[in-house]
Order: sequence, then structure tokens, then C-alpha cells
Amino acid sequence: MGYTKTDELAINTIRVLAADATAHANSGHPGAPMGMAPVAHVLYSKFLKFNPKNPNWLNRDRFVLSNGHGCMLQYALLHLYGYALSIDDLKAFRHVDSITPGHPEAHDTPGIEVTTGPLGQGISNAVGLAIAQAHTAAIYNKPGFDLVNNYTYAFLGDGCLMEGVSSEACSLAGHLQLGNLIAIYDDNHISIDGDTNQAFTEDVKKRYESYGWHVLEVSDGDSDLDSIEKAIKEAQAVKDKPTIIKLKTIIGFGSKNQGTHGVHGSPLKADDIKQLKEKWGFNPDESFAVPQEVYDLTGKVVSAGAAAEQEWNKLFASYGEKYKAEHDDLTRRLSGKLPEGWEKSLPVYTPADSAVASRKLSEIVLQKIHSVIPELVGGSADLTGSNLTRWKEAVDFQPPATGLGDYTGRYIRYGVREHGMGAILNGLAAYGTIIPYGGTFLNFVSYAAGAVRLSALSQQRVIWVATHDSIGLGEDGPTHQPIETLAHFRALPNCMVWRPADGNETSAAYYVALTSQHTPSILALSRQNLPQLESSTIERAAKGGYVLHEVEGAHITLVSTGSEVCICIDAVKELEKKGIKARVVSIPCFEVFDAQSKDYRLSVLPDGIPSLSVEVMSTMGWERYTHEQFGLNRFGASGAYLDVYKKFEFTPEGIAKRAQATIDFWKDVPNIRSPINRAFQQLI
Amino acid sequence: MGYTKTDELAINTIRVLAADATAHANSGHPGAPMGMAPVAHVLYSKFLKFNPKNPNWLNRDRFVLSNGHGCMLQYALLHLYGYALSIDDLKAFRHVDSITPGHPEAHDTPGIEVTTGPLGQGISNAVGLAIAQAHTAAIYNKPGFDLVNNYTYAFLGDGCLMEGVSSEACSLAGHLQLGNLIAIYDDNHISIDGDTNQAFTEDVKKRYESYGWHVLEVSDGDSDLDSIEKAIKEAQAVKDKPTIIKLKTIIGFGSKNQGTHGVHGSPLKADDIKQLKEKWGFNPDESFAVPQEVYDLTGKVVSAGAAAEQEWNKLFASYGEKYKAEHDDLTRRLSGKLPEGWEKSLPVYTPADSAVASRKLSEIVLQKIHSVIPELVGGSADLTGSNLTRWKEAVDFQPPATGLGDYTGRYIRYGVREHGMGAILNGLAAYGTIIPYGGTFLNFVSYAAGAVRLSALSQQRVIWVATHDSIGLGEDGPTHQPIETLAHFRALPNCMVWRPADGNETSAAYYVALTSQHTPSILALSRQNLPQLESSTIERAAKGGYVLHEVEGAHITLVSTGSEVCICIDAVKELEKKGIKARVVSIPCFEVFDAQSKDYRLSVLPDGIPSLSVEVMSTMGWERYTHEQFGLNRFGASGAYLDVYKKFEFTPEGIAKRAQATIDFWKDVPNIRSPINRAFQQLI
Repeated sequence: MGYTKTDELAINTIRVLAADATAHANSGHPGAPMGMAPVAHVLYSKFLKFNPKNPNWLNRDRFVLSNGHGCMLQYALLHLYGYALSIDDLKAFRHVDSITPGHPEAHDTPGIEVTTGPLGQGISNAVGLAIAQAHTAAIYNKPGFDLVNNYTYAFLGDGCLMEGVSSEACSLAGHLQLGNLIAIYDDNHISIDGDTNQAFTEDVKKRYESYGWHVLEVSDGDSDLDSIEKAIKEAQAVKDKPTIIKLKTIIGFGSKNQGTHGVHGSPLKADDIKQLKEKWGFNPDESFAVPQEVYDLTGKVVSAGAAAEQEWNKLFASYGEKYKAEHDDLTRRLSGKLPEGWEKSLPVYTPADSAVASRKLSEIVLQKIHSVIPELVGGSADLTGSNLTRWKEAVDFQPPATGLGDYTGRYIRYGVREHGMGAILNGLAAYGTIIPYGGTFLNFVSYAAGAVRLSALSQQRVIWVATHDSIGLGEDGPTHQPIETLAHFRALPNCMVWRPADGNETSAAYYVALTSQHTPSILALSRQNLPQLESSTIERAAKGGYVLHEVEGAHITLVSTGSEVCICIDAVKELEKKGIKARVVSIPCFEVFDAQSKDYRLSVLPDGIPSLSVEVMSTMGWERYTHEQFGLNRFGASGAYLDVYKKFEFTPEGIAKRAQATIDFWKDVPNIRSPINRAFQQLI
Repeated sequence: MGYTKTDELAINTIRVLAADATAHANSGHPGAPMGMAPVAHVLYSKFLKFNPKNPNWLNRDRFVLSNGHGCMLQYALLHLYGYALSIDDLKAFRHVDSITPGHPEAHDTPGIEVTTGPLGQGISNAVGLAIAQAHTAAIYNKPGFDLVNNYTYAFLGDGCLMEGVSSEACSLAGHLQLGNLIAIYDDNHISIDGDTNQAFTEDVKKRYESYGWHVLEVSDGDSDLDSIEKAIKEAQAVKDKPTIIKLKTIIGFGSKNQGTHGVHGSPLKADDIKQLKEKWGFNPDESFAVPQEVYDLTGKVVSAGAAAEQEWNKLFASYGEKYKAEHDDLTRRLSGKLPEGWEKSLPVYTPADSAVASRKLSEIVLQKIHSVIPELVGGSADLTGSNLTRWKEAVDFQPPATGLGDYTGRYIRYGVREHGMGAILNGLAAYGTIIPYGGTFLNFVSYAAGAVRLSALSQQRVIWVATHDSIGLGEDGPTHQPIETLAHFRALPNCMVWRPADGNETSAAYYVALTSQHTPSILALSRQNLPQLESSTIERAAKGGYVLHEVEGAHITLVSTGSEVCICIDAVKELEKKGIKARVVSIPCFEVFDAQSKDYRLSVLPDGIPSLSVEVMSTMGWERYTHEQFGLNRFGASGAYLDVYKKFEFTPEGIAKRAQATIDFWKDVPNIRSPINRAFQQLI
């Protein structure tokens, strides 16, 4: 309330900066920033709690631009509100090596909470951020210490609403009654193909009501700042439902082509920019100009934000006097480091221990470590009993009103919503106080490919407990048996794909996944039992690849992962009968193995002898490590798992046969070179 | 109406068969079949139009079991209603090489329309089937010839409703006013994690109303057959909206554990099966028994179905007399074959032609062939102007009431719904009269990974026009630049991934994609211009890989795809300056190249000289073809595309440097072996 000409100027400054930057880059999306500038101004100047000098302040409000293509809005705001983002950075918009890339990236730019652009992800991340807030508050807040009480605000457009990932996440957000989540829908009726009436005519208000959201409407998002403010206030007051504000705006407001898809994804023409600068009292000959009154206005907000953090720091210090353990634990969590000595809780096995499915081994790890790593928050996409993702004592994360759990709960029932879960995991990790994991069948991690990609790009410590990892799941058949999945995620940069072969390797996978602060992990786990191997150790497996069985004068190296390693061990005996000596190497994680020294890798996969990989799925990628590959470059089959393995010859005999063929094929090659040797280094 | 004891018996027979088969397999899902048996009985005995002796009859009603894990319901029905599926096939449920796999597979089992199991896909396929019906009817029906008027029925459960893919497809179905689509929601309140109140508390009725669906409820799906029949009748009568019937059922009806998740995914115990057989008048000592009265009842339906098809055949014959061209065209479409001589319309280029982006080359192909291949139905996930997927004269597929097109339209506005689009494409292809393609950015085909996988598994001729295929898209940056995407889909069996380098290769990609009746294709297309290459031809490129530039006494083979091929050609000149002779090979499609003879492949990638692959994305998989790999095993960068290429050294100089390194590294190896040589054959 009480908005003045200066507010209008601030809004128009955002619009002009967006027009200038996209024109300067000759690329980008001016429309959304120009349309959303008013609500952004109201939000930043009246509501958002932040200190730009410390973008990591725990209790800051989180702001997510789900329609990430409109990032000039966000960059303009970050500049105006004192973040380390200069006018020169705005001029470098969409230039190589700038901190202002074409879509906002969390790890590049101060003040960007999550990486957005792929539609539907941001709003789903926001659900994760809101869950994380509710959980952190439930754990740490105490009478008189309302330590964690931030809101999560998300802007989103028609595209985000059309994407299924947002449907999944928003349905869950309604179920979870996340009153701290406020979404603002830029209802501008335009998408890339033109008017949304061509494909998107559903009743969004009704849909969100069906999810259990509080729905508000503001009919003039272009100039009615009072109504915008009132709506946000009302949203804040609703404590048991997330709110979405349907805000009517005109895309590219101010442009001669406002309200058309012409302003969506292309810079405005020079004469168009000229007219809008003239119209709004800017010098048409200047670019990237910010009036001092605007800096004065935003500067006040910045000062207030810095003061707010100082107040909070005092509160937190006095909290520390009364609740030392909680204070120290929260401080530790925010550092990203795990509690001292946690790794002693990891289970260790010897060959005398019984055969256990690696999904079960994973459950044992979780059962052992959940009490020493309190920031571990698990869940499953409705496969809890199959993924074995829930420790016995777990409390569900549920609204207390449901009687099914409460917000201190560390187990999330995601429903059958893999993609939503993936995006929520990213939000949970981005909040800063949680290490999230989620379970589904390995095959259905693919449903969440869009989110997994962003875990990797935005360097989030997110863990997928991906069970039923191969044809070894048996009867469910080809629709559920992964073939291409490991190749897919192994090809994704900064993503660790683990396929442990036994208990020690499973513990190693967790060890590396949990201690890698900036890399997501996918743990591919078996449905069927696996024996505990001779000479596997956590330490060895933590190198990503190691020699499991060494023999003097070996004729061949068998290289394998997961459930096929023990079959390779049996194949060694089969080969011995024919006088053939075979080494066995286990490579549970390519990404981690690749990071070892060349000397170490050559000691595992040495020159001089041929090698054969054995894995019951696509051979793609194995050529990087071995001379020959035994895999499954076709779909699987439905049947009892041993029958399926037999059908495709993944038996000691089937492996031995191919080992023999490999030896024969390579016998005339002198000085066989290990594939570890490369002509040149890859760019990283 | 007028249901008798025999109907009850038929329903209980389905239930008993489901219990027997899952018990016999010691695996599977009895709950859904037992709960859905009543509605299935009503549908099959009173409504469904089909002739089991000809499962391909065009005007049959389509039945989709979206909750595919309940497939014993479908197998029992197929058996009872005369399809080529015997009691022995039921006994072989979930056994290797049976036609009754753990989830229904379209290419394996007569009467299965689409492959389901991965949740959310079936209902989305059903949307595609319904679009296809509406389109085919609009094209072929004539006054007095209501040739194509079938319904599409889909059963779905809570899981399907939670999945985002179904949200996307169902929102579009509402927009498209598909009155021929009738979904029946098994509202049994149980999912794998237990009661749906743990994660799924949205108001489904309201959600579907928000999409523009007609929503009905039947409160007793276990025994109120009259109400079920009435609801389906009402659904049939609603012509301008799809209908969903919310049917309350008890999962595992009849079991001692009915209504719990205990009956969802595990066979019933022996004593439980015994009690239900006794309760329903079956001999508890018999398994897989079908009372003769039941066969008598279903036999009548079968006879009526055969007669209905005969009637239709007569109608079609007399249609042929009046509308010969349409008759012949429809007959041809159903054969899967393209019109004679269509390929003459494919554009052909010479090096004198100007440089054109391959997305634009794709547009030119579509512009040239749309009139000769009338079954081609295109679309885009809201990227029409970027994907260039729409020919100039195209009419949009829209409900006539919108004024934006009509059902004869061959261009579908999918909205920003990649996964929904992918699943709809599968339904369109499965209908039998359409060859569908859909556009999005290559990076966002990953959003649809679940659907693409099913295109491949169920052998659907579906084409993805996947533009903006690399870092060459420039400013949009890493969130949009594919790195892992080609490796992912190349690892998927029965999926052709094309990355054409110029106009002739683009024509070749379309040629092979369109003539491969049982394989989906992904065409990865550039945003940036590509020159027309010397010696590329459609015929050569259609082999998947070929020699583009040959030279006597070559020191190295450069192997590349798409936009990097022309840079390799320039690198050849760069290398010539240093006295190095380089061959250049283009491999636009691994899958197709792999299918060529070994002799041919060795002629392309011969022994004796080292090879270097060049592709601006993950190198994973290239080790299969080349000795060394130049790629991008990291995320890209936001900037003008030439700047980005330069940053990562994808320049003639950068390639030449690595070619030199490759030659140096391999110079001491005698008799360099082409990677085409393998020790043994892969299983197929």
C-alpha cells in the first residue's frame, strides 16, 4: 500500500533492464520479465526476507523463478537488491563464462536458489524447499525461538503448469498442507505457440483447489500493486494450505507487441525499446541505466535485510545458549559436513555372512546410519516395501492433522510420482539442512530424467535408491527391466551411478554418496540375493573400481558390477577347469573410478591381457574399460529370475564361453593395450 | 440390465483365474483383477465391439489396461472372449517366453492394444487412440458410412492418476473434447504403500472436471452391475467430452485380505484361494477351471462380434464402390505401407545448395512429403516455431467448436507436455491409420523417456523431431544443451537415433524412419546452419554410416555426426597443411549402421588406421566405433554458438590437434584393429 511514482520507476527499470539485456545479447526472453516486474517489485520491496551480503542465510525467504527463461527478471532484481551481480554482469547476459547464463544456474550466481529453465522443475523444487522449511522448523524451533519461519515464493507460467512434474509435486504439496509455499502464476495467456487457448484450456483455479491449495486471483497484475500486496498477505496468513495467486498480466508490458508471443522469446527491436524508454521517462540513448531513486528504494530494503539477519544471528546465538546441541547440530548441517565418526555405523561384511539382496543391504545401511545422520530424509514413490527405504522407527513426514505423522518426520510418502519426487529432492537438498534420498525402481528413475539432470547440473547431493536394477527383477518383465538406464545416467556429467556387488560395496556406495557434497548418486540395487565377496572392502570399493580376484599369469580380466560379479567369480572356477586363469575386477561406479590416478586405474585394468565386461544390460560405455563386452542390447524377458539369466546365458558357463572367445580373439595381438590408455585428455 | 447368476459366475471366474494364475506363477497382482472383474464383465459382455478372430479389425473398440500390473484381468478376458490365448497360456503367466508376460506387451499377445505397466502410460496412450479415432473418422466417414466410430476404454488406478504423464495427456484430452474416450478409475483406495490417504488426497473428480471431462461416480463397483452399465451408457452419450467413471471397488474382492495392500502385489495363500472357490461354488481342488455356462455366455459375445465385423466389412466394401480412392487409401494405411513412389518427394541437395539448419531441412522434408503421405500427423510440445514441425498449409487438429481447426487437422498442439506427447504418439501409432511425429528440443525428449522406452519395446513407428540438438543451440545454455541424451537413446534397444549432417542425410533419416514400421526414431536436428556436403546421398546415408571423404594412404579416420561433420571436413584441410591425410566418415545412426554387413562396416571403419570420433556431447558409446573420442563429458555453456564451440575447441584446429595426438598415440601399434571386429556376437 502507499505505492508512489518511485515504485513505478523501479518496476519500469526492471522492464528496461530486461529489454536492454536481451537486446544486447541479441537473444533471450523479455516478455516474462516485463510482465512480472510489478509483482516482483512488490514481493522484493515489501515481503521478501533476505540479506544479499549473505545469500546463504538459513532463514531467508526462498525465491524460485520456475519460468527460468524469464531470468533477466531475476538478474535485474539481484542487481537492484544488492547481490554480487553488477551492471557489467547484466551486460554479459548470455555470454560465455558470465554469471548470467541463459537460464539461471544455482551454482554460478549468488542469490539463485535452484537451477531452472526446464519447465515445471522450479515450482516442484519450491515444494521441496517448503517441505525442508517445515521439517527444519519442526525439528529446531522452540518456544520463544521461531528460528526457521521463512516462506518459499515461486513464480511460474503456463508452461510450468502444463508439465506433469508440477502436477505431481503440487498434488503432494496440497496433501502435505504446506502453508509456507506461495506460488504466483503469470497468467498471460501466451506460450511459444501463441495463445494458450490452442492447448491449455483447463480451469487452473479448479485444478489447484482439487489439490487442496488456496487459490487467489488478481485481475490486474500490470498496475494494481495494492491488490498484489493484499493477495500475498492473505497467502501468508493461510497456514494449512499452499497458495497459488493467479495473476493476470500482459506479457512484454510496454512493448509495441505486448500481449503477443512475439515478445516471448525474442529481443525487442531498437525502435520498440526507444519508445518504451521515452514513455517511461528513461533516456532512449542510454542502456542499462538505473535511476538513483531506484537504488535508494532498493537500498533501504537491503539495509533492512541485513538488519534482519543480524537480529536473527542474535536470536540464534541465544538459542545456542539454551539449546546447545541443537544449535551445534544445525550449524554443522549448514556446513554440509556429516557428524564426526558417522562412518563407523556403516555395516561391514565378511564372506561368512549370508547372501542378501543389495536393496536389503541398503535398508541395513539406512537402519544403521539414520540415527547418526539426522539430516537424512528418505522416502519412496509408493514402493516402500520394495525399495526397502524406510527404517523401522521412522516417522512419516505428514501434516499432524492427518494423524499419520508430523513435520518432524523423516520419511516422505511421495506417491507414484517419480518426476515430482526427483524435483522435490533437488529442493530439499538446496535448502541446506537436509540430505534427501528417494526410492523407486531403477527403470523408473527415467521418468525423473529431467530432475536428475538438474541434480547433476546444479550439484545437489541427492540420492536415488534405485532397486530392481536389472532383468534380475524377474517376473515383472521387460516393461520394468532396465537396459539403457545405467548408460543414460553414466553419460550424465557429475552423476555417480553405483551398482554394488555386495554388502561392503553397498556401504561404500553410501559412504561416497553421502560425503560427496556436490554430486547426486543413483544406487542401482538388486532384488535378488548376492553373496558377500572375498576381498571386497568399503575402502577398496570407495575407489569406484578395484581388483577383487588377482591371479598370477592371468589370461583375462573379467570386469563386472553388481549382481554379475558373483557369477564372474563362479566363471573363474569354470575357466580354471580349462586351464584358464582369470582376474576379476569390480567397477561399482564409473564416475568415481575415472577420478582415480591413471596408475591406479592401470593397476586394476592392466596392459598385456584382454578384458571382458559382464553386465546384464546395454554394453554401451563398457568399451571405455574393456576389450570385449557381454551384455544385453535387447529387452529382457518375464520369468523367474534364474530362468531369465539362463535364457540370456548370464551363467558361469555363458561367461566362460565368452571369456574363451575373448582370449582367442586377442591372442595374436602383441602388447595388448589397456583401454585406460588414451591419446589425449578429455576436457573437464 | 437383467444380470443373472451366470454373470456373477463369469465375474467370479475372472477372479478365480487371476488368483490361480498368480498363485501358479508365485508372482503377480491378483488385487486389481479381482476388484475390476465386475466392470470388465459389463464392458466386455455388453459394450465392447471386437472380433477376437481378427484383433486388427479397424473399427473395434480399443481397450487399454493402464494399470498393467493387473494384466491377469486382461489375459483372463482375452481367454474367455475367444482370443488366441489358451488356458495353457494362462498357466504360463509370468514364465519365460510365454505370451502372458508380467505386464501386457502389445507385440506379444493378440488383443493387447498397447504395452502397459509403467504407470500413467496406458491412459495417455488411450488419449492417442481416441485422437486417432476422431481423426480417422473425420477423414473417412461419409454420409451413410459411419465407418469409424469406435470407443476407447481405459481402466486406470490411483497410480496412473498420480503420474504426471497422465495429467498432461488428460488435460489435453479435455481440451480436445474427445467424446469417444471413456476411462474407468478403479477407486480402491489402495496403493503399494497402503491407504492412498498417505499421499493422494486430492479431489480427483474436481481435477477431471477442471480438465473439461465429464465425471461420473459409481459407489458400488463390486456388485452393482446395473449402475456400472448405466454409467458407461451415459459416457457413450456424451459426445463433446471424455468421461471418467469413478468406480468404488474393493481390491482383491473375495480374498480374506480384500481391501488391503496385502492383495495388491502378492499371490493369495492356498487357504485363501480355497475359501473363495468354495464361497463361489468352484471346486477347490481344481485350478484354471472355467464353467461351461461362462464359455456359453462369452461365446455369444464372440459370435456377435464376428457378425459385427462381417457387417462392417460389407459396409466397407460398398464404401469402396462409392469412395474408391478413400477405400484404397485406408486399406493401404492399414497395411503399414507408404504410398507408391512417395520417396520421390524427398528433397535432394548438392554442395552448391546453401547451408541450412537441419531443423529447417526437416521442415522442408515435411513440407514436401505431407501431401503424399496423408497419414503423417505432426505436432509439437509448444515449440512449433523452433522445431519447425508445421507445414504451411497444415490445419490444426482441434475441436471444431474452438474455431481453431477441426478433427481432419493433421497438426496437434500438444502444449508444454513432452511426456504426455510421447505417450499419445504411441497411442496414435497403435491405432493403425496414422504415422505420428512430435517436436521438442532434444534435451526435453528426456522428459518423455518413459514413453520413448515403450515406443521401442512395443515397436511403434513414432518419430521425434528433436531440434536444438547440442551446445550449438547457444545462448539457452547448459539447462537446454544435451550431453547425455544421444547416449541414452542409443543404448535403448530398437530405437533409431539420427543426427544428420546435411540435407541428404536429413532426407535419409526421414526415409528410414518412415519405412521402418516397427521402430521409433529420434531425429536430432541442429539450430545452426549446416553446409551441404560433397558426396552425401540419401542412399549412402540410409546405411546409417558411410565414407564421406576417402583418401589414399590415410593416416586417420575422423568419424562424426550432425553439425560436427562439416567441421571435420575443415579439419581435413587443417591436417593437410601438416602432411596428414584424413578420411571422414559420417555415422548419422548407430542402430542402422550396426545392421549392415560386417564387410560393409569394415569398409567404412577399416583395419590398419586409427580413428577419432568427434561429437559435441558425451563420448559414451563412441568407443564401439573409434579408437579415440573427442566429445564433451561435462555440461555446456551459455553463449553465442560459435563462442561455445570455440570454448570447447570444436574447431578445425581443435580437431586437428586431437587427430595428431591420436596418430602419435597409435603409431607404434602394428596392425591396428578396427573396433568393428569383435570376439563374439551380441545376443539379439
